[in-house]
Amino acid sequence: MSKGVLIVISGPSGGGKGTVVRRVREMLPDIGFSVSATTRAPREGETDGSDYHFIGKDRFREMIENGEMLEYTVYCGNYYGTPRSEVEKVIGSGRDIILEIEVDGASQIKKKFPDAVTLMLIPPTLSELEKRLRGRGSETEDTVASRLSRAAEEIKLADIYDYVVVNECDDIDGSASVICDILTAEHHRSSRMKNEINNFTDNH
Amino acid sequence: MSKGVLIVISGPSGGGKGTVVRRVREMLPDIGFSVSATTRAPREGETDGSDYHFIGKDRFREMIENGEMLEYTVYCGNYYGTPRSEVEKVIGSGRDIILEIEVDGASQIKKKFPDAVTLMLIPPTLSELEKRLRGRGSETEDTVASRLSRAAEEIKLADIYDYVVVNECDDIDGSASVICDILTAEHHRSSRMKNEINNFTDNH
Repeated sequence: MSKGVLIVISGPSGGGKGTVVRRVREMLPDIGFSVSATTRAPREGETDGSDYHFIGKDRFREMIENGEMLEYTVYCGNYYGTPRSEVEKVIGSGRDIILEIEVDGASQIKKKFPDAVTLMLIPPTLSELEKRLRGRGSETEDTVASRLSRAAEEIKLADIYDYVVVNECDDIDGSASVICDILTAEHHRSSRMKNEINNFTDNH
Repeated sequence: MSKGVLIVISGPSGGGKGTVVRRVREMLPDIGFSVSATTRAPREGETDGSDYHFIGKDRFREMIENGEMLEYTVYCGNYYGTPRSEVEKVIGSGRDIILEIEVDGASQIKKKFPDAVTLMLIPPTLSELEKRLRGRGSETEDTVASRLSRAAEEIKLADIYDYVVVNECDDIDGSASVICDILTAEHHRSSRMKNEINNFTDNH
């Protein structure tokens, strides 16, 4: 059995990333999850090992130093990260795994896990993104302006990603289906087909 | 408009390459053709520029020296090759192009045209290939033996290809559909999405 593929998806906030990734999970129900680690306290109803791996700050820092975190970030004084062991477990079982990660995190992962496939999902234009952000009705002028300028910065890093998918207006299925095709293609990279190649001559 | 993708497909003789490529062309009717060049004389009913570009040996050798042939081979004293201009014309018009090429030719193309996507189509096992070759009924023992040993040699070069697809018994549609997915994925490589990335900010 071949290993699964780790695909990392980034993209400007408001670009429809969450919706597209949910649709990919519906299309590929076998896809795996990775449970993140955090140093924040569990909230009511959260289970250790299922919602998060809840660990102490010392342990988290130790994992960073030992290269056991594929990426991490600090938010409101707490660490959040993706343990390498979580990802290895899922792809070792032959299932693919999708991580939605900020641009910073994606380049951390690519360095530590060169086999990762990285994809940036972008709206067709900044004007379209602006329309979507205003459409939410919940964002202040300042928030819209800061998200747009951040999106313009993020998009400059698109060429460090392996793939770029334009999330056309209202075509969630189209974008999700391109991501599924990319997963199929990546499974057939010759570097991931060593078993099948060996199999060709071994059984003769 | 983005450029088309040149995909080069190789694989052992008897592995079903021709059938799979025909199926891909049915699935993607917009896919382009390239007209090969040859130094052999036109046969009755063949048209220059449509069946082949019929050219003289001096001109053919000149094109090789000028780097105008992406690959070429000599067969029964005549040259056969793929002019770069043919491929550029098709992909410049935004259409993809499939070339079925021997292993030697594929590595020539990859050197001269690094943007080419290369794919090796292999049968599941040598025993399966043997069964298919004998199933034709038209091959002598010697031919079967020499094709099998050639296939075993070719397969060793699978890892210089970008992709490997195993053509499972009787699943022509499955193999063709993986090749279509690979074309979709390759169109979304960030290196081929520069227009879309620029478009994101240009129109704001």
